[in-house]
Amino acid sequence: MQTELSKKLGIEHAVFGFTPFPAVAAAISRAGGLGVLGAVRYTAPDELQRDLDWLHEHAGGRPYGLDVVMPAKKVEGVTEADVEAMIPESHRQFVTDTLAKYGVPELAQGEASGWRITGWMEQVARNQLDVAFDYPIKLLANALGSPPADVIARAHEHDVLVAALAGSARHARKHAEAGIDIVVAQGYEAGGHTGEIASMVLTPEAVEAVDPLPVLAAGGIGSGQQVAAALALGAQGVWLGSVWLTTTEADMHSPAVTRKLLAAGSGDTVRSRALTGKPARQLRTEWTDAWDDPAGPGTLPMPLQGLLVAEAVSRIQKYEVEPLLGTPVGQIVGRMNEERSVQAVFDELTRDFEKAIDRINRIAGR
Amino acid sequence: MQTELSKKLGIEHAVFGFTPFPAVAAAISRAGGLGVLGAVRYTAPDELQRDLDWLHEHAGGRPYGLDVVMPAKKVEGVTEADVEAMIPESHRQFVTDTLAKYGVPELAQGEASGWRITGWMEQVARNQLDVAFDYPIKLLANALGSPPADVIARAHEHDVLVAALAGSARHARKHAEAGIDIVVAQGYEAGGHTGEIASMVLTPEAVEAVDPLPVLAAGGIGSGQQVAAALALGAQGVWLGSVWLTTTEADMHSPAVTRKLLAAGSGDTVRSRALTGKPARQLRTEWTDAWDDPAGPGTLPMPLQGLLVAEAVSRIQKYEVEPLLGTPVGQIVGRMNEERSVQAVFDELTRDFEKAIDRINRIAGR
Repeated sequence: MQTELSKKLGIEHAVFGFTPFPAVAAAISRAGGLGVLGAVRYTAPDELQRDLDWLHEHAGGRPYGLDVVMPAKKVEGVTEADVEAMIPESHRQFVTDTLAKYGVPELAQGEASGWRITGWMEQVARNQLDVAFDYPIKLLANALGSPPADVIARAHEHDVLVAALAGSARHARKHAEAGIDIVVAQGYEAGGHTGEIASMVLTPEAVEAVDPLPVLAAGGIGSGQQVAAALALGAQGVWLGSVWLTTTEADMHSPAVTRKLLAAGSGDTVRSRALTGKPARQLRTEWTDAWDDPAGPGTLPMPLQGLLVAEAVSRIQKYEVEPLLGTPVGQIVGRMNEERSVQAVFDELTRDFEKAIDRINRIAGR
Repeated sequence: MQTELSKKLGIEHAVFGFTPFPAVAAAISRAGGLGVLGAVRYTAPDELQRDLDWLHEHAGGRPYGLDVVMPAKKVEGVTEADVEAMIPESHRQFVTDTLAKYGVPELAQGEASGWRITGWMEQVARNQLDVAFDYPIKLLANALGSPPADVIARAHEHDVLVAALAGSARHARKHAEAGIDIVVAQGYEAGGHTGEIASMVLTPEAVEAVDPLPVLAAGGIGSGQQVAAALALGAQGVWLGSVWLTTTEADMHSPAVTRKLLAAGSGDTVRSRALTGKPARQLRTEWTDAWDDPAGPGTLPMPLQGLLVAEAVSRIQKYEVEPLLGTPVGQIVGRMNEERSVQAVFDELTRDFEKAIDRINRIAGR
């Protein structure tokens, strides 16, 4: 499974694996894909450094990358406290009431919320980059549009390719104009932040929009047949995130979340603003239902919603309050039915890819 | 482009074209696909007979099919007047007010609404079948689930294959258990009634669910690359509806609708209940916005909504009131940018299919 882009990056399969877990990223790279470590949870640069050290040591000398969340628009001089002050009391009350309704215990005093808005701020991403460029990363991906011009230039100085996620051909074109190297076309069926255009339509539109820049297809891909489909649509590779969540290398911290992922069907996700204020696909839960209920107060815009629910989400996760417990994941969750190693996922992926090619050649009479 | 199913049906390409227009259906069959005529608009059996006569004469001796709308559940002894009486006055007022706001003229006295609920009733579909089985149709498709057992049996006596649309693997399995022959897996990106699971995920799920029954992939397919992708996902053919709307053979009755279709991007559709009460993808307009607005009265369930808006839709269409004027269409509308003959669509489809196969073989190192 070799495209121009995979050859350029020196990887065996044109499979890009996004994951928040260093052990998963390392296993993806060892298996012949490109492991891309999600950096958003590292607010402290030394933690990122520690995990990149580990990843570098365990990637078997294979290439790997980093995914940051760098807002396209810079917010100057705004503190977390400023943002906190913008949250209406009625919304705080709704969080309190909903947690009380399900008997969700409080965190112990001094126990920090797992998710802080600061992870989304440009300075944090810049600190992450100061660390990351000390490592031989091959790819820098940004989940929130094109990174600033100086970051792109800095990446290029380090021979790092820059990728940006796009949910429409228009976004893809904007990224191309900003000077990025790879567009990740993220379809409606993808986990996390998504637009409304499905991969079947979005992938070829993005390919046409930025030609000759390479496009990776993201959203709805977890099998070799789907990899073949994405490549037939003109992608130079696939970007997989959800499928790694149920690998044995993933450190989900919650057996209940893993159980829910293994049990969920493709119809059990929802594109909801409950998590961050922007539509993000995740497991549908009574928590997302509460936020999406027209009878409720509704969600706040990003970044207010994320800040509003951060502690609540930590409490739900810590105490595994099942009706409320969710996680970002794509529609591909329907085929994530057993825990397997990353290598086992790759073995099946490449085997089924070859089968799909055999089948399509028979249909084409070749 | 030959699958087991296309061979069984004696067609050259595994491309199934759904259309309300006999001229389009005939051209699809002549081009080597299977033209499938949508019957929902024929409330009078003699009109269907006239158009099937025409189709038979112009299909060049090639196979063709019929698509009916036969509800899975039978509604006994309910008249249109009974259903009319269930519509709240406030909803009627909202229709009146919205039309007045845009200055939509009234129909002339005695001018019938173009869409009647009766087209959705089982007896109407049965009358259609009495006509249809006099013709050598090869396929009978049902847009509302599995047809009743006696209809399936009757089709099989006439050597007619029965297809049913499904938006989930569960629906597909139900259809298979009912004894149908082909599942049309209709993805989120499709025009008309759709579920929430995108084709990239739905197609392989349906294939696995009903194996060894054949699955046609519907939703998001308009190019040869997309045909290749759908077949790589395990489909035995593709089901295309939207792409024919802008062919020269299509009789859209409204230059304004055609203009809007040619101008629309993939992001200009919406999955709205405005048309029938069930989610159906269509062009997004100020009409769909009004129904989807949380500040409005919202839509009524099927079949009330369809009956409520039937005359309004006729008026909007007749007077081409552009801000309100829409039509069911899938996200593939983004690449419907010029009027072309059905044959030209086929020529490009088959050429690009071959190109996609070449490309994927290069990637696979074959």
